[in-house]
Amino acid sequence: MSNIVTLGEIMLRLSPRDNLRVVQSNEFDVCYGGGEANVAVSLSAFGHKTYFVSKVVKNEIGEACLRSLLAHGVNIDYIARGGNRLGIYYLETGTSLRPSKVIYDRANSSIAESTINDFDFSTIFKDKNWFHFSGITPALSDSCAKITELALIEAKKAGLIVSVDLNYRKKLWTSEKAISVMRPLMKYVDVCIGNEEDADLVLGFKAHGVDVNKGTLDKNAYHEIFKEMKKEFGFKVIASTLRESFSATHNGWSAVMLSDDKFYVSNHYDINPIYDRVGGGDSFSAGLIHGLLTLSDKDALEFAVAASALKHTILGDFNEASIEEINSLVKGNTSGRVVR
Amino acid sequence: MSNIVTLGEIMLRLSPRDNLRVVQSNEFDVCYGGGEANVAVSLSAFGHKTYFVSKVVKNEIGEACLRSLLAHGVNIDYIARGGNRLGIYYLETGTSLRPSKVIYDRANSSIAESTINDFDFSTIFKDKNWFHFSGITPALSDSCAKITELALIEAKKAGLIVSVDLNYRKKLWTSEKAISVMRPLMKYVDVCIGNEEDADLVLGFKAHGVDVNKGTLDKNAYHEIFKEMKKEFGFKVIASTLRESFSATHNGWSAVMLSDDKFYVSNHYDINPIYDRVGGGDSFSAGLIHGLLTLSDKDALEFAVAASALKHTILGDFNEASIEEINSLVKGNTSGRVVR
Amino acid sequence: MSNIVTLGEIMLRLSPRDNLRVVQSNEFDVCYGGGEANVAVSLSAFGHKTYFVSKVVKNEIGEACLRSLLAHGVNIDYIARGGNRLGIYYLETGTSLRPSKVIYDRANSSIAESTINDFDFSTIFKDKNWFHFSGITPALSDSCAKITELALIEAKKAGLIVSVDLNYRKKLWTSEKAISVMRPLMKYVDVCIGNEEDADLVLGFKAHGVDVNKGTLDKNAYHEIFKEMKKEFGFKVIASTLRESFSATHNGWSAVMLSDDKFYVSNHYDINPIYDRVGGGDSFSAGLIHGLLTLSDKDALEFAVAASALKHTILGDFNEASIEEINSLVKGNTSGRVVR
Amino acid sequence: MSNIVTLGEIMLRLSPRDNLRVVQSNEFDVCYGGGEANVAVSLSAFGHKTYFVSKVVKNEIGEACLRSLLAHGVNIDYIARGGNRLGIYYLETGTSLRPSKVIYDRANSSIAESTINDFDFSTIFKDKNWFHFSGITPALSDSCAKITELALIEAKKAGLIVSVDLNYRKKLWTSEKAISVMRPLMKYVDVCIGNEEDADLVLGFKAHGVDVNKGTLDKNAYHEIFKEMKKEFGFKVIASTLRESFSATHNGWSAVMLSDDKFYVSNHYDINPIYDRVGGGDSFSAGLIHGLLTLSDKDALEFAVAASALKHTILGDFNEASIEEINSLVKGNTSGRVVR
Amino acid sequence: MSNIVTLGEIMLRLSPRDNLRVVQSNEFDVCYGGGEANVAVSLSAFGHKTYFVSKVVKNEIGEACLRSLLAHGVNIDYIARGGNRLGIYYLETGTSLRPSKVIYDRANSSIAESTINDFDFSTIFKDKNWFHFSGITPALSDSCAKITELALIEAKKAGLIVSVDLNYRKKLWTSEKAISVMRPLMKYVDVCIGNEEDADLVLGFKAHGVDVNKGTLDKNAYHEIFKEMKKEFGFKVIASTLRESFSATHNGWSAVMLSDDKFYVSNHYDINPIYDRVGGGDSFSAGLIHGLLTLSDKDALEFAVAASALKHTILGDFNEASIEEINSLVKGNTSGRVVR
Amino acid sequence: MSNIVTLGEIMLRLSPRDNLRVVQSNEFDVCYGGGEANVAVSLSAFGHKTYFVSKVVKNEIGEACLRSLLAHGVNIDYIARGGNRLGIYYLETGTSLRPSKVIYDRANSSIAESTINDFDFSTIFKDKNWFHFSGITPALSDSCAKITELALIEAKKAGLIVSVDLNYRKKLWTSEKAISVMRPLMKYVDVCIGNEEDADLVLGFKAHGVDVNKGTLDKNAYHEIFKEMKKEFGFKVIASTLRESFSATHNGWSAVMLSDDKFYVSNHYDINPIYDRVGGGDSFSAGLIHGLLTLSDKDALEFAVAASALKHTILGDFNEASIEEINSLVKGNTSGRVVR
Repeated sequence: MSNIVTLGEIMLRLSPRDNLRVVQSNEFDVCYGGGEANVAVSLSAFGHKTYFVSKVVKNEIGEACLRSLLAHGVNIDYIARGGNRLGIYYLETGTSLRPSKVIYDRANSSIAESTINDFDFSTIFKDKNWFHFSGITPALSDSCAKITELALIEAKKAGLIVSVDLNYRKKLWTSEKAISVMRPLMKYVDVCIGNEEDADLVLGFKAHGVDVNKGTLDKNAYHEIFKEMKKEFGFKVIASTLRESFSATHNGWSAVMLSDDKFYVSNHYDINPIYDRVGGGDSFSAGLIHGLLTLSDKDALEFAVAASALKHTILGDFNEASIEEINSLVKGNTSGRVVR
Repeated sequence: MSNIVTLGEIMLRLSPRDNLRVVQSNEFDVCYGGGEANVAVSLSAFGHKTYFVSKVVKNEIGEACLRSLLAHGVNIDYIARGGNRLGIYYLETGTSLRPSKVIYDRANSSIAESTINDFDFSTIFKDKNWFHFSGITPALSDSCAKITELALIEAKKAGLIVSVDLNYRKKLWTSEKAISVMRPLMKYVDVCIGNEEDADLVLGFKAHGVDVNKGTLDKNAYHEIFKEMKKEFGFKVIASTLRESFSATHNGWSAVMLSDDKFYVSNHYDINPIYDRVGGGDSFSAGLIHGLLTLSDKDALEFAVAASALKHTILGDFNEASIEEINSLVKGNTSGRVVR
Repeated sequence: MSNIVTLGEIMLRLSPRDNLRVVQSNEFDVCYGGGEANVAVSLSAFGHKTYFVSKVVKNEIGEACLRSLLAHGVNIDYIARGGNRLGIYYLETGTSLRPSKVIYDRANSSIAESTINDFDFSTIFKDKNWFHFSGITPALSDSCAKITELALIEAKKAGLIVSVDLNYRKKLWTSEKAISVMRPLMKYVDVCIGNEEDADLVLGFKAHGVDVNKGTLDKNAYHEIFKEMKKEFGFKVIASTLRESFSATHNGWSAVMLSDDKFYVSNHYDINPIYDRVGGGDSFSAGLIHGLLTLSDKDALEFAVAASALKHTILGDFNEASIEEINSLVKGNTSGRVVR
Repeated sequence: MSNIVTLGEIMLRLSPRDNLRVVQSNEFDVCYGGGEANVAVSLSAFGHKTYFVSKVVKNEIGEACLRSLLAHGVNIDYIARGGNRLGIYYLETGTSLRPSKVIYDRANSSIAESTINDFDFSTIFKDKNWFHFSGITPALSDSCAKITELALIEAKKAGLIVSVDLNYRKKLWTSEKAISVMRPLMKYVDVCIGNEEDADLVLGFKAHGVDVNKGTLDKNAYHEIFKEMKKEFGFKVIASTLRESFSATHNGWSAVMLSDDKFYVSNHYDINPIYDRVGGGDSFSAGLIHGLLTLSDKDALEFAVAASALKHTILGDFNEASIEEINSLVKGNTSGRVVR
Repeated sequence: MSNIVTLGEIMLRLSPRDNLRVVQSNEFDVCYGGGEANVAVSLSAFGHKTYFVSKVVKNEIGEACLRSLLAHGVNIDYIARGGNRLGIYYLETGTSLRPSKVIYDRANSSIAESTINDFDFSTIFKDKNWFHFSGITPALSDSCAKITELALIEAKKAGLIVSVDLNYRKKLWTSEKAISVMRPLMKYVDVCIGNEEDADLVLGFKAHGVDVNKGTLDKNAYHEIFKEMKKEFGFKVIASTLRESFSATHNGWSAVMLSDDKFYVSNHYDINPIYDRVGGGDSFSAGLIHGLLTLSDKDALEFAVAASALKHTILGDFNEASIEEINSLVKGNTSGRVVR
Repeated sequence: MSNIVTLGEIMLRLSPRDNLRVVQSNEFDVCYGGGEANVAVSLSAFGHKTYFVSKVVKNEIGEACLRSLLAHGVNIDYIARGGNRLGIYYLETGTSLRPSKVIYDRANSSIAESTINDFDFSTIFKDKNWFHFSGITPALSDSCAKITELALIEAKKAGLIVSVDLNYRKKLWTSEKAISVMRPLMKYVDVCIGNEEDADLVLGFKAHGVDVNKGTLDKNAYHEIFKEMKKEFGFKVIASTLRESFSATHNGWSAVMLSDDKFYVSNHYDINPIYDRVGGGDSFSAGLIHGLLTLSDKDALEFAVAASALKHTILGDFNEASIEEINSLVKGNTSGRVVR
């Protein structure tokens, strides 16, 4: 069991029942989620001690959000309380030819307006092993970018392994801004997760022969990109999920990884139907961190891709799949026979 | 933006949650819909001014029905109030091998018992461009047949374009009765929508080589039928959707159209899973009307078929898809990737 | 119309809404079910008089359970009242790569703790035609094994046809215990239903070339096993469903039967998506009993497999499909077109 | 245990959740009910064999309706199947200053359009003790009035006790019509239930000093009316509930009865809050029938008023209170302490 | 029928089901509301043409909000589209000793950040009779204060009657700020609605002998204050509701008004239980405007207080009571007897 | 902030929505609760570190139960995992004249079948201040009685203050058994909570002049009993709530306490309507423990009675009221005015 810290935003998620549209709904299902919180929850389910660092408004909505983290075993001691609001995202879950739709209302959230005084990273990182963040956190505000950098400096000082999920969000910043903020942070990163599009828009890489909008993905092209990325940034591990989007409810799912100069291609899963794909990438990150901490590289990748494949069958941002269930899938049990 | 009038029945739709059966349900989801109302709602969403003409009972159910139209931007000034009841249909949504089931309780509705005195079509059609009706309206009662005929006469007098969706309903009348009522009305019609079965049962056409119950559909046969129909009735445009029924949740979907002696075959969509196929035909009619008013013939057909394909992913009779979403599908974006 | 008796346990079934997990749920859908009760309900829907024999606790939960049987036309006159509790099972309905999960809390139920004094089988079997039980009933407790044996003796005395669904449940007993209890009961059985795994674990048969966990099933191997089983136990009819598990939501479904030395292979159904597969085997047993009572052998098997295929599209343990709907499927209508 | 027959209409009841209004609702709670069916259900719960006579449409809605009766132990063998529809009533449950509202859509129901050929009363009344009807049944249609008369003639021939609940419904007929139909039927009636308003509008009595719309009710006036009614019609028992309407959620509740020249005034209950008052009168009728069959006159009245007081705390038309619960209330236990 | 304009903010309202707390809820009921929008909706229900002026974000939440207004018959032609977000308020509905709780998340809404360029009041007020606003609108932002002032100038220019609901919101501004902004606006106001606390905090009045937190309210003191207010500001009509708060579910409700030097005290209503008191004041304002436009002063006050009493029995911000229902209450029908 | 340990059973609570009866429900609301767990949850909300000691089954239901505790800030490190099942109780929430009903299905739970080897109390009580248990825990089984005794011995050894809630449960044991087990445990107890009935049935006290079933309660009689109890058992503090049961939805609520020879009578609260009274006593115990740890005796009692009064307005076993809300009630704010 390791001690793992993640830093980022957690939001209130409001979504119509089933596949209804927002304009049709007079009730919203409520849950809470956000990239780095999702990673912490998964890792907690895998048996690690996890600490989520953020700032959360001090009202009933904030309280409900914290309860959700507590219920999933995430430590909230380093979550600052205060500020104006919890960010919100509305999720319309699509089906078949109709894509899912995310509508953000996250500006002016407590974390976006937090300052470096809200966090004492030397205390936070004491006796911890791993620090994970994503490209979303520094995109929230200039202050959050500063906080992220400070966290990285302290994490390295304290000897933690650092992972990042590049996760480009065009609603939060431009590619130019992203590159100017994120490139300098890469020197602190050991494990880099992100697809070709993220590498392009967040780090300025121009990949060739890879089109993430196509159904088919060129794995060799990924090998090339990863080798270049490793050369430039010195990442120890680089990984990316490969999503084939056949429809809103039918995806292919696999992943690739470069580690120790070895390139791994995972098993491929056919996910049909998808129940909720939000948080799929986060569950991969969590699976990979768990895998790298406890398994061989090859098994780590297989664990990560199976964990995130299962996430697509679970409602909400959080991956409620257990290690046993994930391992059963890794072993090839995709038959879906009733477990009694 | 055009001013479009539709005439027909709107019903209360009661349906069990999800795929439950009526006998299992102790609650029904409530919405309102009916062929011509559905067309008006779609056209309103596409930016047109729409007017639904009908008669609706003066009680809370009628009030709720009107609110539903108002909420979707449909003008209700020409809806007469009174009579005994709003018609009802119960919808059991099937899945996989089990077909959906519609149970009608629509007899003695206010519209079925309405008379020509309930409507002043010369006022209604003033400053309007297009009039749409379906084969359901005259089937409701002899009085409704008379009202429909009167509406057509006045529509033509006022210079409107007229479209019809033939839409045979065997619970409402026999084919013999349908033919005797509908054939004489065709002289007023510019745009005729209906598949081979409708043409046979409503207009008395005997088509060859087309079996709508088969998975595969012979598009050439449609071309032949359309040419004959054009010759006989002088329709300017004839169109039909082509549904391949693989299961209750999986259909193929495309359409064909004859216009200006050109025969068009649309893109083909694979819809899997279907969320709600009721109103699929109506959303095609609306899409076609919008297309013929604003686009080239070819683009009109593609818009109509994409609009109605999307309808299958939306619960309720009304098509809640936007022009932007439909155009994205027309451009080939069927990947279902999350829109953020 | 026949008079049919079934004996066994009925449980309270608690399941999260849709495909939620138990840990995510703050409400459970409630229904009641259990192998032999499910069979009685189906047979009642097919027009037979059915009698369910069990013991049910005398409180509100027991009352609700009985109401569920009554509502489905099952006679409850021979259900003893008393004991401590109704058994419970929690059902998590999986999707795609995630299997469904059943969590039992059935120990110490009223039926498990019932004694032979709770039932007067000579009265129960008076003027009845058929008796059905499953391998679950004698597995509940030693007392239940005794009750089952007594029931079989009395059923034979009264001249009833006897059917069994072998239905191995590893949470209830070991294979060794099952074999020691069940083998001696086979001499009373006319119709034996069970797959290769059941035959192995419940009756001690070692089959060759059949792997029920594989997607593909070797029908010839079943023919061989059935012939051997017939030789040893003298069954008049032996049948098994063949489930191909592609995923939790996609199965292939068919069945095989040996009767009068003829081996029948049924139509094959592709079920996608599955709505609820619990009770699928029970609906097959009921279909087969109905078929053997009213149809030719071949038609009996087709009715049974179509009935149980439809069950997969219906929520709850009980098969709410009508004879008309089943016959429509038997005739090949798998198109899922709306029934109006 | 007696064998009791009731005759009348059962309807589909659709009501918004909680105290929402119809225009606010996109789902309706579903249950089934109607005066005489409600009486049968109560009497079944009290241990009697009950038979409901009606005509119910042969579709899924009719099937669901019958299941509801079966679940409550009511025999449905004498319910004719066929006709066009099940009547519907929409119920908006008020609160405080806002009254509940019932919107009927019951015209052209199967029972309203049934004929005397649908029922064979000599068979129906064989081996039965008691026949109950209400003033609603003959009001449904002239044919129903005829059926009611025929039933009364046959009931008397077969020696049954006959009770009526006068129950005036102004939406169904005028007072003049009611009087012309109902007065001639009174000669068959032994037990007459109805308040002063019913006596006035249904039987033509002009009462003095009683205003049912007032909060306070003059019990002596009731004594006078009852004596006159007895003289004129020869009723053996006359009873009426006394409702004090303080608000939609707060009522006083008691009853008076004349039997064997003795006038009884029941205990008075303060019901606050009322959960659902629909069916309150029917539960009184059922309680009185049960009481007159098994208790002293005084106890019969107390049982009836306590049963119907409890009904106000139960959702739906049917009274789900048990004999034990009613007796506990009769004994004065109104404290509402938790029963463990 | 008059043409009435209101100006202000409309918010998304999210509330737990029933009386659950936010921290307990995994679903929120959704509706839309805000002081001036609520007034417009009521007036539309009373038969007036109403126009709501605001700015609403251009996304699905904004669209749903507008649909809600359209469904209630409110014209949305003068609602500017754009900006960042729709304000939100979370409502926990209390009960008994536990008060309801409102949690605002309304900062940075589209209306708060709107500018005078978003509205063309000379067009808006053309052919309109009445303009209503509240103390909330200018409190939203300095820009909104400016917009309000501009609206008032133009309204007066166009000859409209102007009403205000003072409505102090301590979360939005201080009393000092409120006084500095609101006092200068009073010269445009004809009808002023507000209790003693509002008069104090918004206009700087120091009232004597009135304590709105007490159960009992001194009506004479109100007469004095109103006379002083009239002298200073020249209001033609001044009115206030009088709420006696016995508990979260039990209030007394009445109102007082000064008009033409006559002081009116309304009927008193005991509201128990309260279903939803949010919007109670707005429904009074709407009732008063309707009353002053169509009734005598005395009847206007009675209509307003009855309308707002009924609002307490209806869920949501909007008053769904009809003129008929309000008039029935005005006439003294508080018995809550079922309306059939 | 103190460190507080509680020991006992936590159950799955299943309850129909609103005030429906079990037999009417096809869904149950799910929550978790039990006397000592409820106390721990309250104390955690008041800012204390709390540890719940129990044994919980190792399946999804057990997991969901633990999540509920974690979400409320209760430490679960000392909860043994294993055994057969989580106990269940079904709750029907009554209203008005109909009492709430609890149906237990708790036999053979993991905690009832736990042994002293499941708990290491010397570790558990290290660095803790207070230990609370109730009369339910030793009633679960002989083994649980032994565990309780062992816990008490170790608690005293470790210097903790000990409180007990006598809480007699007639379904679990007889009064004779209760007395024989509980009396010997009293020597370890500092704070004894329980009403006169508990004192009688659990400790063998015969009280005079107190009838807990009566609406009125004689406070002086309580003073006498408390003095006697103190003399015999040496309790430092004795307290009891006083519930006046007017109906299922309307109670009076207050409490009395003897401490340091001073007798305190609390404020009296009128609770109408009650939303959920289950857990009312536990919330009093928690309030009293918090009060005795942080306030004067008088204030402690007022805090406890206000906390538990508020609990009656909150759904579920757990008291979701905050210190601020409780203090507001203590200060006399019972007006229920909206908190904005």
